[in-house]
Amino acid sequence: MTSGFIPTLRTGRAHPHPEPLSGATYSAVELMPGDRAVVILDQRKLPSAEKYEILNRPEQVAEAISEMMVRGAPAIGIAAAYGLVLAAATTSKDTGREFSDAMQKAADALRATRPTAVNLGWAIDRMMRLAAEITTVAGPERIARLAAEARSIHREDVAACKKIGELGAEKIRDGATILTHCNAGALATGGFGTALGLVRAAHAAGKKVRVIASETRPLLQGARLTAWELDRDGIPVEVVTDNMIASLFAAHAIDVAIVGADRIAKNGDVANKIGTYGVACLARLHDVPFYVAAPWSTVDLATPSGADIPIEARSEQEVSHIGDVRVMPDNVRARNPAFDVTPARLIDAIFTERGAAEPSSEATLAHLA
Amino acid sequence: MTSGFIPTLRTGRAHPHPEPLSGATYSAVELMPGDRAVVILDQRKLPSAEKYEILNRPEQVAEAISEMMVRGAPAIGIAAAYGLVLAAATTSKDTGREFSDAMQKAADALRATRPTAVNLGWAIDRMMRLAAEITTVAGPERIARLAAEARSIHREDVAACKKIGELGAEKIRDGATILTHCNAGALATGGFGTALGLVRAAHAAGKKVRVIASETRPLLQGARLTAWELDRDGIPVEVVTDNMIASLFAAHAIDVAIVGADRIAKNGDVANKIGTYGVACLARLHDVPFYVAAPWSTVDLATPSGADIPIEARSEQEVSHIGDVRVMPDNVRARNPAFDVTPARLIDAIFTERGAAEPSSEATLAHLA
Repeated sequence: MTSGFIPTLRTGRAHPHPEPLSGATYSAVELMPGDRAVVILDQRKLPSAEKYEILNRPEQVAEAISEMMVRGAPAIGIAAAYGLVLAAATTSKDTGREFSDAMQKAADALRATRPTAVNLGWAIDRMMRLAAEITTVAGPERIARLAAEARSIHREDVAACKKIGELGAEKIRDGATILTHCNAGALATGGFGTALGLVRAAHAAGKKVRVIASETRPLLQGARLTAWELDRDGIPVEVVTDNMIASLFAAHAIDVAIVGADRIAKNGDVANKIGTYGVACLARLHDVPFYVAAPWSTVDLATPSGADIPIEARSEQEVSHIGDVRVMPDNVRARNPAFDVTPARLIDAIFTERGAAEPSSEATLAHLA
Repeated sequence: MTSGFIPTLRTGRAHPHPEPLSGATYSAVELMPGDRAVVILDQRKLPSAEKYEILNRPEQVAEAISEMMVRGAPAIGIAAAYGLVLAAATTSKDTGREFSDAMQKAADALRATRPTAVNLGWAIDRMMRLAAEITTVAGPERIARLAAEARSIHREDVAACKKIGELGAEKIRDGATILTHCNAGALATGGFGTALGLVRAAHAAGKKVRVIASETRPLLQGARLTAWELDRDGIPVEVVTDNMIASLFAAHAIDVAIVGADRIAKNGDVANKIGTYGVACLARLHDVPFYVAAPWSTVDLATPSGADIPIEARSEQEVSHIGDVRVMPDNVRARNPAFDVTPARLIDAIFTERGAAEPSSEATLAHLA
């Protein structure tokens, strides 16, 4: 194998980035060498195609986030950070004022894409703090400084995922069957994954774990993404429809449920993909542990409780149509809240890179802060 | 409006039967005048097309049942009864022995189509008891007698649905929002429906009710069929994905949950469409009444409990593919149990045409028997 070899992927194109920070042969988002382009894996096309899009303008990154070409709370934070590098790159010869205005405009556009995941605002705020400090430096250096910061956000997220995985994997017994909902994997993060980070760490530790992925309507992130990731890693995974979960619990077919998070309120309430609350209810009812895995960037101490988390309502068409085919009568409306809130009392543990919180005991998140 | 006028339906063809026993402008299944053809609405094509298929052979009816062109426990019982009329019709000039053999062969094929709904076996047994009595009568009279019996099964089912609706509607308050899962409507029965019979009866009594239909993966009977039926009747209905149900309960957006049944065991355990058990768990957890509506033909006193009910496993492809598109990786398997079992203790009432049972008190079903 020669240096710089890029493995040929089983489906679609090879990754266009020579050294993805994700640490895998694929990644949700990367900044290309030279800092002038962001590469995003179009997750809407998985698993039938693995197609990477090269974006050069921050508004393209914003669109990629709102259209869910890239999704997952940590991943969209990283994508937004890289989007702000592109904003700086488009203004490298401009004055400090023009730079600041362009950055602010891009930040506003990126922030407006999706309301629920707090990592988005967190990453944008971090990048904009740096931007405010470097308005007077030369254009090329502005870009380099912002690129370094964005890559740090990315690297820190991968490191957090690995730490979370390590911590959480201790709780996973050999032979466990793990239910996960939606996708909280490498595709939802900088790499390695949060909920799937636990699975990967347990698998790497030699535990024979298997995963049941609920398909996660309407966009099927469980069937399309979680199954794809785990299959690539050779970790056994099986897909069920969301409405099969209850009977699996009843049949004692699930040992533990693990999900990611889009925002964790100060009191330990967790917003995550629609359906998560139902999984948590059913886990508790059947005495199965329910865990949340998320980097600290998902914790929002400024939001007191789940009731204060904005829940994104997405297009009815995601529910009413499958592909181009309308599956319900023309006159009938559909609802499409993208997230729900799981109260802290139903969560047995929240694994972060700072340690595990047990939010049923109120002080624990604050203790990690 | 002239006598014999068949209303032009909004979509697709007008009903080919001049006087459907369903009592509506559409029906799941009817025996055509002349007793030589069964007409079945192809429910796989709803709501985009309302297409009726004319079948002349019992094996076509069996295929229509196994392929879910017609579905719903009472409706497949009626379809099987009509299928046995066709078996008699194909043997009208044969000896009693040939008649019996042809009937037995058709009964076996029809019975083998789907294992969970008890109405199928119940209707076949009832038809075969009559067939055994009339082996010596003339061929044409055999057909007429069997056709009359099958139409009685159909008429009794519609009458049962109306009685169930009346009884159950008393429990529905004006202004109620009713959650229903899958389709237990006119399309699942001889007409009028069981769960949707309650909704129709409440609506007819002037109560302003509205329905939330969970889409019911994998085959989307809620989105495709329940929404279609209720929309035709002008009853407000909205569709959600199955994984939105829990958060609707949490938001106090559901006043009562009502479902149909495929088989009710002696102890009051209910097999119904996959996902029903989850709805029942969530209803109980949120203190919302959970009702089952079913004709007495769905009650199987020979089955002691839910654990004894055979649960049909259907093709993985119903889960792994949407239309012709595979939505999960090639290597990954999917599960597809078509039903689950809700234990009696989670059911607040079972409405049958014989009265309401409250299965948490064990004696009640036996009392109605």
